[in-house]
Amino acid sequence: MKNNPIGVFDSGIGGLSVLKQFIRFLPFERYIYLGDTARVPYGNRSPETVKRYAMESTKFMLEHDVKLIVVACNTVSSVALDVVRELSTVPVIGMIYPAAVAALRATVNKTIGVIGTRATINSNAYTDEIKKLSDGDKIKVISQACPLFVPIIEEGWLEHPATRLISEEYLASLKEEKIDTLVLGCTHYPLLKQLLTEIMPGISLIDSGEHAAVMAVRMLAEKENLIEEKDVYVQKPQIEFFVSDVPSTFYDVAQRFLGFGVESPSIVNLNDYSK
Amino acid sequence: MKNNPIGVFDSGIGGLSVLKQFIRFLPFERYIYLGDTARVPYGNRSPETVKRYAMESTKFMLEHDVKLIVVACNTVSSVALDVVRELSTVPVIGMIYPAAVAALRATVNKTIGVIGTRATINSNAYTDEIKKLSDGDKIKVISQACPLFVPIIEEGWLEHPATRLISEEYLASLKEEKIDTLVLGCTHYPLLKQLLTEIMPGISLIDSGEHAAVMAVRMLAEKENLIEEKDVYVQKPQIEFFVSDVPSTFYDVAQRFLGFGVESPSIVNLNDYSK
Repeated sequence: MKNNPIGVFDSGIGGLSVLKQFIRFLPFERYIYLGDTARVPYGNRSPETVKRYAMESTKFMLEHDVKLIVVACNTVSSVALDVVRELSTVPVIGMIYPAAVAALRATVNKTIGVIGTRATINSNAYTDEIKKLSDGDKIKVISQACPLFVPIIEEGWLEHPATRLISEEYLASLKEEKIDTLVLGCTHYPLLKQLLTEIMPGISLIDSGEHAAVMAVRMLAEKENLIEEKDVYVQKPQIEFFVSDVPSTFYDVAQRFLGFGVESPSIVNLNDYSK
Repeated sequence: MKNNPIGVFDSGIGGLSVLKQFIRFLPFERYIYLGDTARVPYGNRSPETVKRYAMESTKFMLEHDVKLIVVACNTVSSVALDVVRELSTVPVIGMIYPAAVAALRATVNKTIGVIGTRATINSNAYTDEIKKLSDGDKIKVISQACPLFVPIIEEGWLEHPATRLISEEYLASLKEEKIDTLVLGCTHYPLLKQLLTEIMPGISLIDSGEHAAVMAVRMLAEKENLIEEKDVYVQKPQIEFFVSDVPSTFYDVAQRFLGFGVESPSIVNLNDYSK
């Protein structure tokens, strides 16, 4: 089992920011990444459809003998994690719990902001989890949908003055409420860390992928299931990419999210995993 | 053993940036922090003296029943880690190895920069470790001493135009060599992350404390020695502070490094641990 890959799946290519955090802290592991780029975004689909799609991705991962499944997609993590867990024969890590714990531990003034797509914010998944975990303690959670962030980030306008203006507008209410911790509740948002810190100096940014990765270190180590570290320290991370469609911007966006170029992904028809 | 604290020691208060990373990823643990503020900085002292001081701090930690010793000080990590390991009855983590592995894994163009105090840079500890680990692979390491960074950071001038000018000067040669990865080889430097990223967009910054913390997650998990996560998620981290002297700027600097205020530290006379 030690040498089996870690499976990371997402509705699209945003989950590469999560994969990047896993590579940072578990650089010796093998990875399988699956992006359902033919059906992205999941945000506006019914919970039933999201669950069905999530089950297909889970089956794909199990068929590829992964030792751990990482649900990088915030929408799937919000509405279908139970379904994935039920179906899976290996441990499953989603985005909500690790970020909620980290946010609760980071806040000093007990005022936490959450930003995400409209679907994630409307689902209240982060707010509910934070409230549940903080049981009894008075925590204020202020959430804000930032629907323009995903298209802007995919366009690569990370430093554009327009991006700054839009960010300032989105963050205004959070600033007013004096949040000291901000959960980046969407796989794309870690690319805006630098700008968000400029707009809100001193803020603790919670990157779900980062905390999910550290949780994976712990879970795999406890089960003695981490791959052995090799003597050769310099090699490209071992990743197999699968997508249900190759969008024209795939290589550019992947490079931006991972920090290095990726090879051709394999195309997979997820309908084959519907039974 | 699970419930015993993690001991973090440093020549001064800079090691709080390392403690901060440990708290981020191991928020449920108990910590003992020891800063040898009466004898800081260690950088210009002879290796024999640094070893003697390191042994005293190690004895202090062992007497306080720590389950893990973290050597946050880059100078001690460079010249005295063997001595600490030999004396210690519990695992020891230094700063050099985790950062060297992380840098080798992060670089794409195989050109790594290292910045640190003059003493750390002159010791070649990071360069030697990176070269040793990359055995056979051609890696270029360019190092640069940044002696003004520590006083500027302790002064709190993180965003001052002067700090930008100084940083640009220090980084000029590294930029010219087209490094794509930069090791922050001093406990203070993580406070300049935002500025350094502005000056070198796209650079991978390697924070030794962060990677040391993740190594600790792994080591403790493998030995089933992590504290159990409690139901109560909101509480201040449990830290006991010890220093050999209380400098006038202690509370301000500690707040800046940790992101929250600290209570009065206990004063310890490390000479008592010299036998």
